[in-house]
Amino acid sequence: MDPPTSAAHHSPDDEAAAFFRAAPPLRDRDAVAASLAAFVARHRARAGAGGGGGPPAVAGVVCVTSGGTTVPLEQRCVRYIDNFSSGQRGAASTEYFLKAGYAVIFVHRRGSKQPYCRFLPEDSFLDLFELGEGSEIQVPESHTTVVKTAISSYRKAIDEGLLLKLPFTTIFEYLQLLQLVSTAMNCLERHGMFYCAAAVSDFYVPWESMAKHKIQSAGGPLNMQLSQVPKMLFILRNHWAPSAFCVSFKLETDPDILIQKAEAALRKYGMNVVVANELANYKDVVVMVTSSGKTTVSRRSKEDDLEEQLIGLLVKMHSDHTKQSNPDQEK
Amino acid sequence: MDPPTSAAHHSPDDEAAAFFRAAPPLRDRDAVAASLAAFVARHRARAGAGGGGGPPAVAGVVCVTSGGTTVPLEQRCVRYIDNFSSGQRGAASTEYFLKAGYAVIFVHRRGSKQPYCRFLPEDSFLDLFELGEGSEIQVPESHTTVVKTAISSYRKAIDEGLLLKLPFTTIFEYLQLLQLVSTAMNCLERHGMFYCAAAVSDFYVPWESMAKHKIQSAGGPLNMQLSQVPKMLFILRNHWAPSAFCVSFKLETDPDILIQKAEAALRKYGMNVVVANELANYKDVVVMVTSSGKTTVSRRSKEDDLEEQLIGLLVKMHSDHTKQSNPDQEK
Repeated sequence: MDPPTSAAHHSPDDEAAAFFRAAPPLRDRDAVAASLAAFVARHRARAGAGGGGGPPAVAGVVCVTSGGTTVPLEQRCVRYIDNFSSGQRGAASTEYFLKAGYAVIFVHRRGSKQPYCRFLPEDSFLDLFELGEGSEIQVPESHTTVVKTAISSYRKAIDEGLLLKLPFTTIFEYLQLLQLVSTAMNCLERHGMFYCAAAVSDFYVPWESMAKHKIQSAGGPLNMQLSQVPKMLFILRNHWAPSAFCVSFKLETDPDILIQKAEAALRKYGMNVVVANELANYKDVVVMVTSSGKTTVSRRSKEDDLEEQLIGLLVKMHSDHTKQSNPDQEK
Repeated sequence: MDPPTSAAHHSPDDEAAAFFRAAPPLRDRDAVAASLAAFVARHRARAGAGGGGGPPAVAGVVCVTSGGTTVPLEQRCVRYIDNFSSGQRGAASTEYFLKAGYAVIFVHRRGSKQPYCRFLPEDSFLDLFELGEGSEIQVPESHTTVVKTAISSYRKAIDEGLLLKLPFTTIFEYLQLLQLVSTAMNCLERHGMFYCAAAVSDFYVPWESMAKHKIQSAGGPLNMQLSQVPKMLFILRNHWAPSAFCVSFKLETDPDILIQKAEAALRKYGMNVVVANELANYKDVVVMVTSSGKTTVSRRSKEDDLEEQLIGLLVKMHSDHTKQSNPDQEK
């Protein structure tokens, strides 16, 4: 593998432009852009953006990103670097945003957890079903309520046009999707929200310096040099959707550096909120870091979702954000 | 990250022993070993092994491995290297082995495709269901037959004790499982079969030289040196289950080196069959490489599974293998 060119001395804008120039183009880009434009247009006036009269029919439009991105190590991809993320947080949060009256663009890793499917057995959904005497499909009584609620909530969100699902696998697909979604959402101004829960790779192999074929193991140990992925949250905040309410996540395994890294991200990328979480207990506790301070959110019990409280607090903050008269972004 | 020690000058046995010594121990090892022992004991006499009288009730016991292994880059794993594999081949093959009368140990990557679930929509199984007027669970008529067949075939395999599912994620878990399964299956002698369709990492970071915490991106580009994973098929063939019928897979992206690499694997690891496939068309055509020659297997139509023919041929070869009187392995 050729050594990738270092981009450390360029500006964030230059780095982002170089990344997109070299990335393999998104498949179905036009179809995705069209479905996005239609989704945003349908909800723009309903969210109260663009000066439409009457009370808003949706609380806002939120882009939820979920799951990990992959970094291909070969152009014809057999091996890749992946980030740990089940997509549990993004899927749960999507349910609570829908419940709070938002329209949701769910940008998710293919195969990651989906809204209303979180209760499923890990490996085989068939473990949930059996055939009755008349060969009708049955669910064990213990699961009947949860399965029926899931089916009806999901159908409602889809049938009412409140949920748009956009899948990605690689870091190249993810960042191109993020750009498409955020430039499409820019017209929502303060009524748009980004909830970036995806686990995005920090390092990647630039496409042009990538091995074309599967790397052979006969050559002994493998040496790789990976480049840093440009910090696209900065570009999102400064160019793509400057008035939106932006929430990002910081995951660390070392609690000693977590809050400090979250505060640095808040400043550096101009986020409204950075949600700090630790791998060891991310389902039980997070810290919301904002310019006015820190708020710890803890799960009430094993039966509750942390996301219910988290989304409740964020919806309130976003509502305050939309009421601010200054159309410029705050930092 | 410290540079890993090179193991290139050691014997395969030494390398394997060193790998297992350093690997983090398998969780639930005792429970897995117990369920394996019970499964093999139940089917041993039924398969005609161990000198039991009467016609065999199962055609044999096969271990199907499926899906890709991950290589953690950090001990508290946030990032890992993964191998492309949906698990489609392993899941489909498991169905055809069950249909051919085998008991199957399905060693699979968590979250990969499962037997009888292959028809599912990619992301949301909820897309398949709706609620009827009496709020009963319904499947659109176009899918009724396939869903009901899946539920009944799956239930039959589970209820009759013919399918044992063992999940893995990392290369450490996979190779420890493979050792447990193959040593448990050794008593089946020639009635045991290994169908190693999992996409196993060639490179890994030895546990003791791995970063403890998430690797920080502030340090600029990331350099990694990866070691070669010991070739465990050699150990399986020579120590763990020497009389079994062994089928392995070779996947390449470059057709020019594929057959030559498959033939090398056949010789080097003493496989009975190496199935050669190319990333670009692995669903449509494979080449079965044996010591007596090559057989190309092509899918008959888009509606057919290549695995149906492939398993048909392998079952025949395995049946011949069990009839050979020489208890030593053939190569």
